[in-house]
Amino acid sequence: MTDRFTFKLIATDGDARRGEVSMPRGVVRTPAFMPVGTAGTVKAMYLDQVRALGSDIILGNTYHLMLRPGAERVGRLGGLHEFARWPYPILTDSGGFQVMSLSQLRKLTEHGVTFRSHIDGAPYELTPERSIEIQGLLDSDIQMQLDECVALPAKPKDIERSMELSLRWAERCKIAFGDQRGKAMFGIVQGGDIADLRIRSAQALKAMDLKGYAVGGLAVGEPQAVMLDMLEATCPEMPVDKPRYLMGVGTPDDILKSVARGIDMFDCVMPTRAGRHSLAYTRRGKINLRNARHADDPRPLDEESDCPAARDYSRAYLHHLVKSQESLGAMLLTWNNLAYYQSLMQDIRHAIEARDFVARSAAITEEWARGDLPPL
Amino acid sequence: MTDRFTFKLIATDGDARRGEVSMPRGVVRTPAFMPVGTAGTVKAMYLDQVRALGSDIILGNTYHLMLRPGAERVGRLGGLHEFARWPYPILTDSGGFQVMSLSQLRKLTEHGVTFRSHIDGAPYELTPERSIEIQGLLDSDIQMQLDECVALPAKPKDIERSMELSLRWAERCKIAFGDQRGKAMFGIVQGGDIADLRIRSAQALKAMDLKGYAVGGLAVGEPQAVMLDMLEATCPEMPVDKPRYLMGVGTPDDILKSVARGIDMFDCVMPTRAGRHSLAYTRRGKINLRNARHADDPRPLDEESDCPAARDYSRAYLHHLVKSQESLGAMLLTWNNLAYYQSLMQDIRHAIEARDFVARSAAITEEWARGDLPPL
Repeated sequence: MTDRFTFKLIATDGDARRGEVSMPRGVVRTPAFMPVGTAGTVKAMYLDQVRALGSDIILGNTYHLMLRPGAERVGRLGGLHEFARWPYPILTDSGGFQVMSLSQLRKLTEHGVTFRSHIDGAPYELTPERSIEIQGLLDSDIQMQLDECVALPAKPKDIERSMELSLRWAERCKIAFGDQRGKAMFGIVQGGDIADLRIRSAQALKAMDLKGYAVGGLAVGEPQAVMLDMLEATCPEMPVDKPRYLMGVGTPDDILKSVARGIDMFDCVMPTRAGRHSLAYTRRGKINLRNARHADDPRPLDEESDCPAARDYSRAYLHHLVKSQESLGAMLLTWNNLAYYQSLMQDIRHAIEARDFVARSAAITEEWARGDLPPL
Repeated sequence: MTDRFTFKLIATDGDARRGEVSMPRGVVRTPAFMPVGTAGTVKAMYLDQVRALGSDIILGNTYHLMLRPGAERVGRLGGLHEFARWPYPILTDSGGFQVMSLSQLRKLTEHGVTFRSHIDGAPYELTPERSIEIQGLLDSDIQMQLDECVALPAKPKDIERSMELSLRWAERCKIAFGDQRGKAMFGIVQGGDIADLRIRSAQALKAMDLKGYAVGGLAVGEPQAVMLDMLEATCPEMPVDKPRYLMGVGTPDDILKSVARGIDMFDCVMPTRAGRHSLAYTRRGKINLRNARHADDPRPLDEESDCPAARDYSRAYLHHLVKSQESLGAMLLTWNNLAYYQSLMQDIRHAIEARDFVARSAAITEEWARGDLPPL
């Protein structure tokens, strides 16, 4: 443990990095996957389970929490860790992305963004300063700068304008955040699908000497190849001695390929959302439990898994639960999915330490491609 | 353990009874509350949790399971215990009650009842023989006779006709069940709100020498006083050396008052259903977590409870979860509610053993009446 926020690189294998982000509330082993706890809960999971799967850190969404239950309220109640009973590191986003995707009647200016809540229509303002204030009230360990994220495809002029605005907001967030010893404020590289803009953004953020750097505005509908191109352009411009976080990504395959390009941290709703939509991530690929082929199948999702949800329940039972819309179906599949994601991250970390990442990555990919067990 | 189905009376206190129902899959300590696992799952709970709360037995619904996933399928998959991963005793109802309340286009004859599934409209037939066959496919430890349950208020002539039909069906179920050493088939006393009919029903069933007896057709909308009157008329007519099960009951207060009149077993959806509707059962009465008074309250539901859901999470957090319709809200409140019900049953069992049931019952009732903690 430490009273400072630090990053240590433990091993590298090609561009893949094995590291540790340390802060007073705990150590995050990287490459790390952060389960998404949108509104102070990882949906359909007890946080004890999330922890037991090897999650060192979870993500909270500033937009959702500022609307309900409200940042000041969470602050009065002792912060998000106390509120949700998660005493380990928490990363919060800035709220900007969800303002753009969920809220109504948005108005964006240099100063910030005003919008109306998608819950009750109440008016709100989010500025770089207010975003950092909210994340402080939540007592977040890793706070994100407010940025603007344009939807792709977009005109180069709009992407550039947005990237420049995000840089000015990064400066304001840095000032608002100030000097908080055990915490960090990360900047976010923007620039859409234009490598030159990504490079300019990364260089400008690097000059601000922040404690960590994120890549934002990807996995928003563009082909995977475009995302990987952007990572290849961006990662070399990011400091080696700071953690790198690819926001909102992604599929297990996205994660493998992004680790290969030097990314350390990930978050994504996929494993939790898929768990509520009858889908199971496994080492044999993605399995749809609604499919009738599972109705009489006594086999578990993965007999070799350590996770009870994967190992102990029959596919027939899981099929029955999802067909009947029983909450236990979502509970078990979410559990399975987060277990799979965290076992994948552990596998990745071991492979990098053993300098075996390329071979291991190929073997994992090959097992996905072989697909699920043949029907009985 | 035993290879037979037996009932042993351990202690009595007034008409209240402390006993044990033993069967190959386990011992049920009575008075017992059976959580309802309608479709092979106790909603929003892992069965490991249900067990850890002190549940010796759960209930499965024949109607739901015969429609989906289907009795023959559950049979092929090894029975309901194997399917749902609950190796302990299971009681199944006959399906009759839900056919009457949920299905479409019912047609009742002496032979049985035909109906259409509320899920997909498919036609089904349920006879006394088929009900026992289905419960056998589910491998249920305690099976219930098919009965007809009239909604109250009803005309005496209809109540009598229905009670007589249920007796004839009890005979047919007894024959269909045959001699199954480690299992039981219970008869069901009917007779609506007419004591004389209840007595006739109980006497006729007693003459059949069944392994246990249920009281059905109560808690269907009549005042509590009517239900208790019927118990007072019925219980003295039931054999002392057989377990007595009051079907579908009830509130904690119903349970206390029914135990006082000689009932041994209960089942009810209240704790689980209430948990999905923001309601918490506690020793201080029922608490509605949607109420704004909880929004800033850092106190748990019950600081003295052994259940993490009751003891470790703030009311403010629970309020937030239910307002946000997060599944964890239903998970925690269901957990709290089943924990409260099972701790109440444990309390009742101890009090009967100590011959202190009347005083303990009064103290419990008094604590409910004092109500919840004052707002902060």
